[in-house]
Amino acid sequence: MTEVNVREKVLAANASAARGLRASFRDSGTLVVNLISSPGSGKTTLLEATARELRTRLRLGGLDGDIATDRDAQRLRDAGIPARQILTGGACHLDARQIEAALAEEGERLAGLDVLLIENVGNLICPTSYDLGEDFKVALLSVTEGDDKPFKYPAIFARAAVTVLTKADLLPHVDFDLDAVASQIAALNPSARVLVVSARTGEGMDAWYALLEESLAEKRTAVAVAAAAVPA
Amino acid sequence: MTEVNVREKVLAANASAARGLRASFRDSGTLVVNLISSPGSGKTTLLEATARELRTRLRLGGLDGDIATDRDAQRLRDAGIPARQILTGGACHLDARQIEAALAEEGERLAGLDVLLIENVGNLICPTSYDLGEDFKVALLSVTEGDDKPFKYPAIFARAAVTVLTKADLLPHVDFDLDAVASQIAALNPSARVLVVSARTGEGMDAWYALLEESLAEKRTAVAVAAAAVPA
Repeated sequence: MTEVNVREKVLAANASAARGLRASFRDSGTLVVNLISSPGSGKTTLLEATARELRTRLRLGGLDGDIATDRDAQRLRDAGIPARQILTGGACHLDARQIEAALAEEGERLAGLDVLLIENVGNLICPTSYDLGEDFKVALLSVTEGDDKPFKYPAIFARAAVTVLTKADLLPHVDFDLDAVASQIAALNPSARVLVVSARTGEGMDAWYALLEESLAEKRTAVAVAAAAVPA
Repeated sequence: MTEVNVREKVLAANASAARGLRASFRDSGTLVVNLISSPGSGKTTLLEATARELRTRLRLGGLDGDIATDRDAQRLRDAGIPARQILTGGACHLDARQIEAALAEEGERLAGLDVLLIENVGNLICPTSYDLGEDFKVALLSVTEGDDKPFKYPAIFARAAVTVLTKADLLPHVDFDLDAVASQIAALNPSARVLVVSARTGEGMDAWYALLEESLAEKRTAVAVAAAAVPA
């Protein structure tokens, strides 16, 4: 079996598990977002702020993928939501079977959530191909990483429904052309939404919270409409 | 053949090519460094400054790995040194056969260099396992990425002889504990050298230039001693 065959087989097994997850998340009415970025772009910091803001009105939970350490899940638990660390055994991405296993082991703590926040391994490349049953992918790019990144890592920006540009509080101190980045993302993915936020100052965060709440409402409406259309 | 077998086979083929490269770089007395970091940590910016500083006294060349765009090699050429872009066809790392092929195709332009600067694909995980025949690996971590990264991505910090902490000009604007990072690196790799630099302001860059020049001198001395020890 060649390297290409093995990769196809791995992706096919992942896709099968992802289909099962997606059906389960539809049944439970859970919005699932899969956050993907380089290490240090601010995924955990965004999710800590999200947990603190939304936990009083929504039931949230987190799954955090990493090569090593369980620090990120601990940070989300400290922010008041249930969260589980998934150590990938060296792999540079989460796969759908790891999500299945983690949810099964957590049982009630991560069942029936309104929103499941999946923080992928810090990597702009590997996680792109692995469907985790999510409603949509969110790419994060911090303004300190440079404004050439969408065209250098096109796959993730083409596939992410939402790109969040983070650390906006550092914009005065770096060379980062927001318009250039927005143009690159629009070229790769004309329907993508682009948000500019600072989790540290709170700038732009309301739009992110609103996006999650609106996406959850839309999903539940769509599921209800589909259920009503099925003859009894 | 399983996924693990395929990976072992790929790494064995890479190791064989890397041995050939290392012998060739020894014969030519070329110091080779393999720079590895997340996207946006400042690899190209460090190399642009290095090219401008050292090109008048050393013969430098660059190889730049990316998924897409040839922007980085162009930036090094604009900084006055020969450089070639290697597009990896989606792979998240360079491999030794790509280095071989690029050097063969460039011919004289990248032959007999004093220092070959290899800028790997932006990724803290995948490039770690692929020997490119280099003298040593250099990990870069920008101070905006957070001070928890060495323990979260231990393999690269354990294997890099040198870690360069970049964007030091942004230290006043971020929470980044230099001592904590130095302690993590020391735990993973007691002999590692850690430099703190800003390519933008020039802070700390002299130590980086000196490290390259001293490493080149040491390599040439070692090669000369080894040659003298061989009976005619």
